[in-house]
Amino acid sequence: MKDARIGVALVHHPVRNRLGEVATTAITSMDVHDFARTCAFFDVAPVYLVHPAPAMHELVAEMLRYWMEGEGARRNPGRGKALAAIRMIPRLEDALCDAPWRLWFTSARPPVAETTPIEQLPQLPGPHLIVFGTGWGLAWEHLPRPAGWLSPIAGTGSVRALSVRAALAILLDRLRRNASQKGEVSDASAG
Amino acid sequence: MKDARIGVALVHHPVRNRLGEVATTAITSMDVHDFARTCAFFDVAPVYLVHPAPAMHELVAEMLRYWMEGEGARRNPGRGKALAAIRMIPRLEDALCDAPWRLWFTSARPPVAETTPIEQLPQLPGPHLIVFGTGWGLAWEHLPRPAGWLSPIAGTGSVRALSVRAALAILLDRLRRNASQKGEVSDASAG
Repeated sequence: MKDARIGVALVHHPVRNRLGEVATTAITSMDVHDFARTCAFFDVAPVYLVHPAPAMHELVAEMLRYWMEGEGARRNPGRGKALAAIRMIPRLEDALCDAPWRLWFTSARPPVAETTPIEQLPQLPGPHLIVFGTGWGLAWEHLPRPAGWLSPIAGTGSVRALSVRAALAILLDRLRRNASQKGEVSDASAG
Repeated sequence: MKDARIGVALVHHPVRNRLGEVATTAITSMDVHDFARTCAFFDVAPVYLVHPAPAMHELVAEMLRYWMEGEGARRNPGRGKALAAIRMIPRLEDALCDAPWRLWFTSARPPVAETTPIEQLPQLPGPHLIVFGTGWGLAWEHLPRPAGWLSPIAGTGSVRALSVRAALAILLDRLRRNASQKGEVSDASAG
């Protein structure tokens, strides 16, 4: 059987800052919660948080302990359940130790002409890792070469890019709706 | 011509707390930014923030000044542009002074059997106001009667509800994609 797993990565380095320079962003607790919750809702795991700084890893570990074992687990058990999918790694390459992920990069303005609609992923050999950049987007020249770039989400308004939180929600909805319309949900959620 | 405007409201009172009691939540800057940005991306306006406390209105007004006129406007002009759609109102009913909005309530578990897929909104007479609840959802018995409830977003995983930020992104994507497939974008974004 083909490996239809879908995972997600949120990259904090290397990304661009507003000047286009290669930079590192801080992990925000809102991103951690929203990524964990949206992925748990759509049965997507794991959720890699990519950050080079050990202090950031410790900060997230503390947050996970609070919600998975501490006071937070009593107050709101659902949060801890969702956060169980979080994996902290220093570099995106480290995700490849877990599984032979095929990397799919995301951007509001991909640097290539040919992009892949996310609805096609279940038809392609996996496992698939959907990669998001914080800040002003992935500094892709400093990352491993991806299997491809996902087609950007088209807007109709004056703002050119969504938050990563909104982009993740829309892409996973499109992925799962398409799969369920084809009767492939159980396949796509295996593993 | 039919009034095809689409607006959004985020209600902080009356909503439910985790015990099912009627409660009031605090406005978070993350919700303000994400709601403004996602709505601007999909050309949806205005974005009503419903809160009874004048102190909360002042806090948001200060935040808007920073991003629309202050230091923030220089640092990131896009944020101010998106935030221009924000309207603070004490009660949901006050939105009806602006336009004869038809209210569409959202919930992960609507209290009615018959719900309306958001894709159908452009075919119905408007203007339409999509209403989200913070906390554990809208305390609908204390709100004006809606035109209907939108069909909930179906998940495939273990978590039963998305964040309001994720739900907003998915619903507006479904709305605009459907409209663009039918060639109705210019109509739906009029006004």
